[in-house]
Amino acid sequence: MMLDPLRIAIAGLGTVGAETTRLLQLHGATLAMRCGRPVQVVAVSARDRKRDRGIDLSAYAWWEDAAAMAAAPGIDVVVELIGGADGIARRVCEIALAAGKHVVTANKALIAHHGTDLAERAQEGGQGLLFEAAVAGGIPVIKALREGLAANRVTEVHGILNGTCNYILSRMRATGEPFERVLAEAQVLGYAEQDPSLDIDGIDAAHKLAILAAVSFGCTVHFRAENVEGIRHVTGDDIRFAEDLGYRVKLLGIARADGTQLEQRVHPCLVPAESPIAQVDDVFNAVIAQGDFVDRVVLVGRGAGAGPTASAVVADLVDVARGRVLPAFGMPFDRLDARPPAPLSTRTGAYYLRLQVRDEVGVLAAIAQALSAQGVSIEQFIQRRRDPGELVPVVLTTHPTDEAKMLRGLAAISGLDSVESHCLIRIESF
Amino acid sequence: MMLDPLRIAIAGLGTVGAETTRLLQLHGATLAMRCGRPVQVVAVSARDRKRDRGIDLSAYAWWEDAAAMAAAPGIDVVVELIGGADGIARRVCEIALAAGKHVVTANKALIAHHGTDLAERAQEGGQGLLFEAAVAGGIPVIKALREGLAANRVTEVHGILNGTCNYILSRMRATGEPFERVLAEAQVLGYAEQDPSLDIDGIDAAHKLAILAAVSFGCTVHFRAENVEGIRHVTGDDIRFAEDLGYRVKLLGIARADGTQLEQRVHPCLVPAESPIAQVDDVFNAVIAQGDFVDRVVLVGRGAGAGPTASAVVADLVDVARGRVLPAFGMPFDRLDARPPAPLSTRTGAYYLRLQVRDEVGVLAAIAQALSAQGVSIEQFIQRRRDPGELVPVVLTTHPTDEAKMLRGLAAISGLDSVESHCLIRIESF
Repeated sequence: MMLDPLRIAIAGLGTVGAETTRLLQLHGATLAMRCGRPVQVVAVSARDRKRDRGIDLSAYAWWEDAAAMAAAPGIDVVVELIGGADGIARRVCEIALAAGKHVVTANKALIAHHGTDLAERAQEGGQGLLFEAAVAGGIPVIKALREGLAANRVTEVHGILNGTCNYILSRMRATGEPFERVLAEAQVLGYAEQDPSLDIDGIDAAHKLAILAAVSFGCTVHFRAENVEGIRHVTGDDIRFAEDLGYRVKLLGIARADGTQLEQRVHPCLVPAESPIAQVDDVFNAVIAQGDFVDRVVLVGRGAGAGPTASAVVADLVDVARGRVLPAFGMPFDRLDARPPAPLSTRTGAYYLRLQVRDEVGVLAAIAQALSAQGVSIEQFIQRRRDPGELVPVVLTTHPTDEAKMLRGLAAISGLDSVESHCLIRIESF
Repeated sequence: MMLDPLRIAIAGLGTVGAETTRLLQLHGATLAMRCGRPVQVVAVSARDRKRDRGIDLSAYAWWEDAAAMAAAPGIDVVVELIGGADGIARRVCEIALAAGKHVVTANKALIAHHGTDLAERAQEGGQGLLFEAAVAGGIPVIKALREGLAANRVTEVHGILNGTCNYILSRMRATGEPFERVLAEAQVLGYAEQDPSLDIDGIDAAHKLAILAAVSFGCTVHFRAENVEGIRHVTGDDIRFAEDLGYRVKLLGIARADGTQLEQRVHPCLVPAESPIAQVDDVFNAVIAQGDFVDRVVLVGRGAGAGPTASAVVADLVDVARGRVLPAFGMPFDRLDARPPAPLSTRTGAYYLRLQVRDEVGVLAAIAQALSAQGVSIEQFIQRRRDPGELVPVVLTTHPTDEAKMLRGLAAISGLDSVESHCLIRIESF
């Protein structure tokens, strides 16, 4: 006995919207069997009706205005694939929830900025707000954290959350080419946008991390732009020195809730070359969660692309069709923990520091002295080339120390006449 | 507003039963918040009431007879942690389902042998049959396949499914010690049973693979003992030769449903040393699924142990408490595909062959000739030591070929006077 169809409206027919529609058409019969009811697109909305998207849209109601579609009758779920933290995307979701519809979205910026508020609106109307596709593409990481690890107190979650950055760093290591050239290559291949800032400055990863933290720890969603560093300053030298020291450079998002504060940061890291996360290359994403009973769970897969993202969107639709709608962050919005964020300066850990130094008598002693004055202890020191009077790279790693001490030491070093520039990268050993 | 408590009866208080009870006690308040209702143990059953299990059981009804407990009123879910494919474990599950209770079990042998039948009984009564803990310990792999990848046609699933074998193979590689000594060490550490046969002969992995295949492909559960090989015949020599050739030895379960048949096999494999699965060492498990939209998803974590298993058992209880009960294998039991199993002889792929050979004139030519007569083409040939008249190892790898041809070639080689023994291992490049 089949139940009534689940009626879907898709707002936004870019590559993900088109692929989601194609998936629902191709696997319609199987999905109906898995859900006990048909999952049917009934309406779509996009700006340009004439564009050929490679799929037959003739059976669906066409809306110029996504907001009007979200308010229309005869629709059970609105799939928001427009993008952007505010504007039309947000309005479509709010209108759909107010009109008693479930919302499925792939919009990480929207959930990172307004997730708690949208969860409240969804809960008040008894609707679902689902966003599996917003984090780590096709990897079912939201489901794993909210349901699969629901028995655990999860104290840490970290991962490679941006495929563009991971591709660039992997290619820099493989080819020895500098950042700018690899970025340009990624843009040609479609792995990086023409305006790459959202990806390479770490914002996209920080959006995803804020969502992961909320689901993992049962806390309100906090997007914290101030704890975010991108990869623009990482040079080919850094990648080679890291390699020599037994590390790889990865842009990681890291969130911890083991104290009373919420630690949440995105920045390049040196990770041990033999660690599982160091093996995750190119456009792949990885999410690693630490729970008190399950210990460590690692999930790896494609973090972007039309197919994987459509897979995640439709997984959410399958949950709705099966009647399995949960509170957005795994518990009622008014029970979410609003723990205060930890400033980045409270980090404790080891550091990698590369300095461009004019090779003069006494400069190494001055560097060592500046760190030692702050109680920062040096673990390794590399100076390969000697070119008296010329600029040479000097690299050091420290034993674990406080970020505040490291930054004070670095400020003193930057003030030295012989030091031209520096690159500081945190070392994380998971 | 809280709903009524979910009332749990736990049958079997070994390490997993005790840890599950401890988890439910420790995280009771959080679980109630996540589920919208308390999740409460009300009854337990074990043979020895006096044993100290480190947890307070005084609040629970005590049953000597697990089957009587399964029939008793006032219980919503029976958690079966007794073990064994038949006998009391099976009876407890059947009685519980007949009495209108949900069943949660960690029993891979039971589900591998009777999963389809139990799914039918559960569906007829509208109950849930949940078994996340039966495969890959704490990794939420059943949920990922049945729900997270529900939008995909999954065509392949493979993995490291037995922590004991993976520990033994990892230690053999790390220490160079022979199989028997590492097994004895694993027994002392509690990683292997006193009767290790279920693990090291591949049966346990085959139980789990049968369950994974059913969930991945939507087919009936087939445990196929005839396609199972363990690791007893893998020697230290094989592990070193594999290393030299750029491979590692892993016991894998592999299931494919891309044709009209169901391919399902467990045996040692040579996998490329740089592949993700080669990095999964010690007692860790890994499951890798291939879906048509999501591409490849990799899940890694602890495949056994009281904590991870309890995490999976309670995740199932959380699903039941949240009212999220699905058909056991992701679709109605009468819609499950009963595709015929593929015999192992239909495999196509490359092979590693180690021969113990009496070093005599012409023996290498005879070996090469035996393979060439079957159309099997040799890729690499290694003979390190020369000791005329003595036994020396000869190792070769082949280009991809049919298993039937390889076995005919091997039969001819085994018939040679100079060949004392052999070890054949399949090469898999994922």
